[in-house]
Amino acid sequence: MTAYTATVTVRLKRGVLDPEAETTKRALSRLGFELEGLRSTDRYEVDLDAESADAAAARAEEMAERLLANPTIHDYEVSVEER
Amino acid sequence: MTAYTATVTVRLKRGVLDPEAETTKRALSRLGFELEGLRSTDRYEVDLDAESADAAAARAEEMAERLLANPTIHDYEVSVEER
Repeated sequence: MTAYTATVTVRLKRGVLDPEAETTKRALSRLGFELEGLRSTDRYEVDLDAESADAAAARAEEMAERLLANPTIHDYEVSVEER
Repeated sequence: MTAYTATVTVRLKRGVLDPEAETTKRALSRLGFELEGLRSTDRYEVDLDAESADAAAARAEEMAERLLANPTIHDYEVSVEER
């Protein structure tokens, strides 16, 4: 077993409204910052032990499917590194 | 002016309690997943126009200092890419 950290990045699908990002963008504009757009994403760094990097990625994908992301509105990406 | 995307990653400082991550970790365990630890971070992808990558990074750092992160409890990292 090797120790890995799987990073799961969860973002809203294109076209899904993101009121939190919209509010953040407006707040930054009010503070005087110039910006064209803002998107926010959630990232989970999961420490796990697995036989291989592929096994760690597969388990992290299942975590994303079952809990971390809502496939109706979210896309997600998984990357794995040894820790 | 060049178009950049600055990514600001905001995470809790070591030692700051993260009840949301703790709850997510427990929920994953209850679903039968084995994991050693879980941290969650927020990422903001900010589209902006700037004279240079350094200028874009400086502006994104100021956004982090003033709004996106709370320096008492958060660390943040900024990275910049041409878009």
